[in-house]
Amino acid sequence: MLFTKEEYKERLKKVQSSMQQKGIELLISQDTANMNYLTGYDAWSFYYAQCVIVHVNAEEPLCFVRAQDVGGAYIKTYLKKENIVAYDEKYIHTWPSHPYDYLVEIIKQKKWDKLCIGLEMDSHYFTAYCHEKIKQGLPNSKLKDSERLVNWVRLVKSNEEIKLMKSAALISEKGMKTAMETINSGVRQCDAVAEIQKTLFMGTPEFGGDYSSIATLLPTGKGTSASHLTATQDKFVNGEATIIEISGVHKRYHAPMARTVLLGKPEQKKIDAMKATNEALDAGIAATKPGNTADDVAQNFWAVLDKYNIKKESRTGYSIGIGYPPDWGEHTLNISKGDKTILQPNVTFHMIAVMQFGDWGVETSESVRVTEKGSELFCNYSRDLHIK
Amino acid sequence: MLFTKEEYKERLKKVQSSMQQKGIELLISQDTANMNYLTGYDAWSFYYAQCVIVHVNAEEPLCFVRAQDVGGAYIKTYLKKENIVAYDEKYIHTWPSHPYDYLVEIIKQKKWDKLCIGLEMDSHYFTAYCHEKIKQGLPNSKLKDSERLVNWVRLVKSNEEIKLMKSAALISEKGMKTAMETINSGVRQCDAVAEIQKTLFMGTPEFGGDYSSIATLLPTGKGTSASHLTATQDKFVNGEATIIEISGVHKRYHAPMARTVLLGKPEQKKIDAMKATNEALDAGIAATKPGNTADDVAQNFWAVLDKYNIKKESRTGYSIGIGYPPDWGEHTLNISKGDKTILQPNVTFHMIAVMQFGDWGVETSESVRVTEKGSELFCNYSRDLHIK
Repeated sequence: MLFTKEEYKERLKKVQSSMQQKGIELLISQDTANMNYLTGYDAWSFYYAQCVIVHVNAEEPLCFVRAQDVGGAYIKTYLKKENIVAYDEKYIHTWPSHPYDYLVEIIKQKKWDKLCIGLEMDSHYFTAYCHEKIKQGLPNSKLKDSERLVNWVRLVKSNEEIKLMKSAALISEKGMKTAMETINSGVRQCDAVAEIQKTLFMGTPEFGGDYSSIATLLPTGKGTSASHLTATQDKFVNGEATIIEISGVHKRYHAPMARTVLLGKPEQKKIDAMKATNEALDAGIAATKPGNTADDVAQNFWAVLDKYNIKKESRTGYSIGIGYPPDWGEHTLNISKGDKTILQPNVTFHMIAVMQFGDWGVETSESVRVTEKGSELFCNYSRDLHIK
Repeated sequence: MLFTKEEYKERLKKVQSSMQQKGIELLISQDTANMNYLTGYDAWSFYYAQCVIVHVNAEEPLCFVRAQDVGGAYIKTYLKKENIVAYDEKYIHTWPSHPYDYLVEIIKQKKWDKLCIGLEMDSHYFTAYCHEKIKQGLPNSKLKDSERLVNWVRLVKSNEEIKLMKSAALISEKGMKTAMETINSGVRQCDAVAEIQKTLFMGTPEFGGDYSSIATLLPTGKGTSASHLTATQDKFVNGEATIIEISGVHKRYHAPMARTVLLGKPEQKKIDAMKATNEALDAGIAATKPGNTADDVAQNFWAVLDKYNIKKESRTGYSIGIGYPPDWGEHTLNISKGDKTILQPNVTFHMIAVMQFGDWGVETSESVRVTEKGSELFCNYSRDLHIK
């Protein structure tokens, strides 16, 4: 068990309290990170339906997984055996039958079929099919979007969670160092990723690395205009920039970091863009303290961009913590104008400036923790344009 | 462009022909692998809504991506610029607004809002929220489950695709060799994954590796009862077995492989279980030829298990090809009793025997190609229980 039973119980209480406020009596949470948060469950089984079921008055959630994964749930969760519910293997990719047919049966057996049920309507793996099965199978229930209520509980980390993120940050630093050393003209992109991944998994002698929720992002050359491109077997080219976005991961907790490296003589416009971006990030971070809002951070950030006449349409940050593919973002707080989420101690976010200028771009970021009086950075790594 | 324009056009034609048969006039395909298959699009942007839109009579599909990813679509797809549709950054994680609000607008603008629209109802990232947006936004359309029609077109590979899978298989072999060398008692699991990942990304001098759709699965000790567990920083222990499931990946094509290694003196029951499993796999592979069905393969496989009195509830294979997290399976053919899919040349599947016996298990697999007269294996690697 990664956290104490008390910490899991505390999380459950917060979720149940939020359920009460929203009038939700039963919550079906399929978000992989939420499952981990509420039970400790951790396995690559999220490629098909699974979920946590939280009754507003229950002492423990139910963990609903495939028969093949029950052994994993016994090992990884803090739950009593009776609260781990296995669905039969006959439901695996054999439409129109579906694991949620059995979920519906379970809910009926428990006589929960007339409750107000909260659903994570836009959670990655909560498909339209899952929703239809619930709608058709539980016609007497009242269905409601939970609006990521578990994600919102996750927004403020415990000190134990912060420790894990600090360990992840040590790994991020090592990974970025390897990236900066390995990216050279004539080197295949995939060979650089090989070294980066090796470093990220090895972690430190004390803190081993996990797989990341997002692959090494490595757009290069014209690709720097598109932040989500991954490595190919093409070689790095002299004169071109490469964006590196990675995260060290320790026990599923992330501390992502992005930097930009340029091989050879840089164009002045790229140096200038990076300088302005760093000034904007610093301004945003300076506004990061309890009581301020995400909007305050964003206003400060964009004020600097305005000064330099730089347009940026995309948000410049999002909350982070536990992550599973395909995302390390928590889907709650955004660092963007108009987001009035109030910052509190142990809110953690990835302040990332994806700067795109037609067919080129630069990128840099910091993983930030709100402290009692201000903020601190998880990683310690120069944000300058790295010129080799 | 990874394939010729002709190959992409051929794929589109097959999809449109299947649409016609199903009475679907417009298809919204959000499955990441389907997007790649139909357009060439390849980026880690699938963590939020994106899709390909196929009109039954169109010469090209539309690729619907976030503004930040348009540059990636220009670089990766074969499409004319006018067929790449960007949605605004304001839609990113700012519920109740949603990228599919704009998708609905586009469909109305094109006057496609009264058509019969096919949806991938159980595709990973096609959330209940996406579905609701379409239902509410296009009340005059007729919505229909496409039943994975693009996935079904993907079932039979072109020779060019087979070549890529063969390259992936070379990488799988290297990765497994590294795993077998690296897993030793006293070694941290994460350090073994570090070496495995390095090998998988380096690939061969000719064929570089990509990130895999599934992380290195590495259940060990009691964890062998749970096939989807991933590495921790715990050390391998003498006397215990470890399951290794990996895939080499080349240009998004996979050729997965599972093996089991045992450190120290093996218990006889594990040797016997592995022997029976291998005999069953061989029997299944012997039945793999054009004209036979997936059921024929399964019947042969289970006949051997019955002989040894071994129970196995889960399917023992699934089709493979292009993959994106969280899965390298194609969600069509299953190797299980009752699956009457007829095998054809260049159908490719992962024949995987996950064998669970209470608190232990063994596992092995082959990636198989149906040939003109029978079958061939992608990888060449002993399936014996590897004893060290």
